[in-house]
Amino acid sequence: MHDFLETLACGACGREHDARRIHTVCEACGHSLLPRYDLDRVSRAVTPDEVARRPRGIWRFRELLPPVAGSDGADLGAGDTPLFPLRRLGRRLGMSNLWLKDEGANPTGTFKARGAAVGVAAAAALGVRELAIPTAGNAGSAWAAYSAAVGLPIHVVMPVDTPPPIKAECAAYGADLTEVDGLISDAARIVGERAARHGWFDASTMREPYRVEGKKTMGLEIAEAFDWKPPDAVLYPTGGGVGLIGIWKAMRELDEMGWLKGPPPRLIAVQAAGCASIVHAWEAGAATAERVADAHTIAPGLRVPLPFAHALVLRAMRETGGTAVAVGDDELIAAMSELAESEGVFACPEGAALLPALRRLLEQGDLEHDATVVLLNTGNALKYTDLVHAPEGSAT
Amino acid sequence: MHDFLETLACGACGREHDARRIHTVCEACGHSLLPRYDLDRVSRAVTPDEVARRPRGIWRFRELLPPVAGSDGADLGAGDTPLFPLRRLGRRLGMSNLWLKDEGANPTGTFKARGAAVGVAAAAALGVRELAIPTAGNAGSAWAAYSAAVGLPIHVVMPVDTPPPIKAECAAYGADLTEVDGLISDAARIVGERAARHGWFDASTMREPYRVEGKKTMGLEIAEAFDWKPPDAVLYPTGGGVGLIGIWKAMRELDEMGWLKGPPPRLIAVQAAGCASIVHAWEAGAATAERVADAHTIAPGLRVPLPFAHALVLRAMRETGGTAVAVGDDELIAAMSELAESEGVFACPEGAALLPALRRLLEQGDLEHDATVVLLNTGNALKYTDLVHAPEGSAT
Repeated sequence: MHDFLETLACGACGREHDARRIHTVCEACGHSLLPRYDLDRVSRAVTPDEVARRPRGIWRFRELLPPVAGSDGADLGAGDTPLFPLRRLGRRLGMSNLWLKDEGANPTGTFKARGAAVGVAAAAALGVRELAIPTAGNAGSAWAAYSAAVGLPIHVVMPVDTPPPIKAECAAYGADLTEVDGLISDAARIVGERAARHGWFDASTMREPYRVEGKKTMGLEIAEAFDWKPPDAVLYPTGGGVGLIGIWKAMRELDEMGWLKGPPPRLIAVQAAGCASIVHAWEAGAATAERVADAHTIAPGLRVPLPFAHALVLRAMRETGGTAVAVGDDELIAAMSELAESEGVFACPEGAALLPALRRLLEQGDLEHDATVVLLNTGNALKYTDLVHAPEGSAT
Repeated sequence: MHDFLETLACGACGREHDARRIHTVCEACGHSLLPRYDLDRVSRAVTPDEVARRPRGIWRFRELLPPVAGSDGADLGAGDTPLFPLRRLGRRLGMSNLWLKDEGANPTGTFKARGAAVGVAAAAALGVRELAIPTAGNAGSAWAAYSAAVGLPIHVVMPVDTPPPIKAECAAYGADLTEVDGLISDAARIVGERAARHGWFDASTMREPYRVEGKKTMGLEIAEAFDWKPPDAVLYPTGGGVGLIGIWKAMRELDEMGWLKGPPPRLIAVQAAGCASIVHAWEAGAATAERVADAHTIAPGLRVPLPFAHALVLRAMRETGGTAVAVGDDELIAAMSELAESEGVFACPEGAALLPALRRLLEQGDLEHDATVVLLNTGNALKYTDLVHAPEGSAT
């Protein structure tokens, strides 16, 4: 066994909760719970070399995950996504160390698979009988896939304007799908009500303690890929912000275990100009963010009026010397084409947003041209083909 | 350097061709050329343990690939796709060792990325200035992606009824796309004519010697995953059949190097009933196949009237004790839902076809229930969402 999980500690007030039982948020203050491990024991139990030699996927890092691997469900192969240099774009930008981590290679085509793999396995292991999740889209299909794999019923609630391929995925996986004429925040309200009424487990972002652990594996993989000397900066498209918190948590844990050979990367949140709660808070020097009133962007994953764990997102940025950038929808659509044409990467609009953000940071002197920078592309654009220009094929 | 490539030998007449120059088919007899390595030297130069410790992706096996890695283009992360047990389906079928290798995790969402990664890199290294490719769809988008990554112009010709997301991919990658009112065989004719006229390199299936080397890595990974004792059978959806030939070639090379601890897997070709040239030939006991007159199936990748390398496909099946199965379109559509609902795998129609084929083989006694069987799902269903039932979501 590899149970190094000690407790679930509130990210705000620190109160501890029994990790052998199912929890949502802190019983005392209502903030997010973060799993805490006996890192001293982990660092004696496993070495970087051992982790590197295990079969691919997130469970290579099982000592830093809840002890739920090997449960009945298939893991579908989340994690160990490609990380490669963007040579042509790098030259164009005058950068020598520009990288892309392509989360589109995950099951269901997005980084959401990491959180779902761990979240669903934990829910199943802790006796949950039925799941419910509000989503901007991709978390819904990822949780639907993993729920199907373990045989748990799931109720997914998403905005009616979510891209059709994502709805088709949910339907194929047999999820009970509800479309709401509103945003993810409206979906969250409906899930909260129905979950309370029917006894479903509410797996909303950062109101469930294990999804962040799955996302954490992105940080573990990035550190490992650079031989435990993290890159200078990671640019991250920030909707709910779980991945950013996860990477921060990964670096803290690795540092405490003595595996890191350098400081954590600067965590840089990229948002859409029409939905930029974290950017506004960052620019105001605030420790918490405010809900965006008229949230709008064509990037579904960025259409989150206020991340539930906004204070943790801002803390992760502050502690790593990060920053925040907002980009326009026109910029991120243009970037989808630029990434595809110049690097052969068909990035989702959320991931493509990182490219104009990077240009801005370089122009402003917020990033050096010789910095080692990772763009975290969160998904495959196959779900968003309506956003790229129509085929220009000629008929014959 | 790791240049262990000795020659390009014709798969039919054996004639050798200089591997330092660009070639299409055999100058003597017009059949496919197969790269041949100095396997003796390879087996002295590298060990299975070394290969396992290298960074993920097809180039882990670089001694068994043309010496073109590290060229300027990004590799986009092809290969090292997930391989996991199908536990729930296995129980349903009374099987204890049923596995799925999910090629949907590749760049561009299909196994075609492996062939394109090696084929485009080889073309670029050998001085090709402009590429052209006929395709049923996915090879086109994969070659377009890799061509974009190395900055080579590419002309893609595909049937007009190819799924729209695939056309959108090609357009995004900046490919010159021509749609033809016909099949891949009609596209091949057009590419042949235009390539001759304009001096483009014709990268048609098995008329180009390196694509099969990329596909070969599927076989290398499968052997490695089972600790070099190959599974009893691999079921493979057979359009052009390059992957099947590639897996066969992988096993032969590994065997000659002394890495294999058991016989190669039985290679089982699965086709659509409306386009089953290989199945017809197999059932007739023939060494070559005949063109299907009225080729039709809703699975674009199986809509190949006659694989160019049909004789090699049949030889690979014969030498491994394989067999061939045809399934109906209704069966493969139903299998898409069954795989998604029971295992959380959203397989393309070609990959889903393997499930009804497997049932038939078990029923007929052609496969034992305790056999170790790998279903090779060639791609992600996100390009085919029109084939799954419409979302059943309720509006709120």
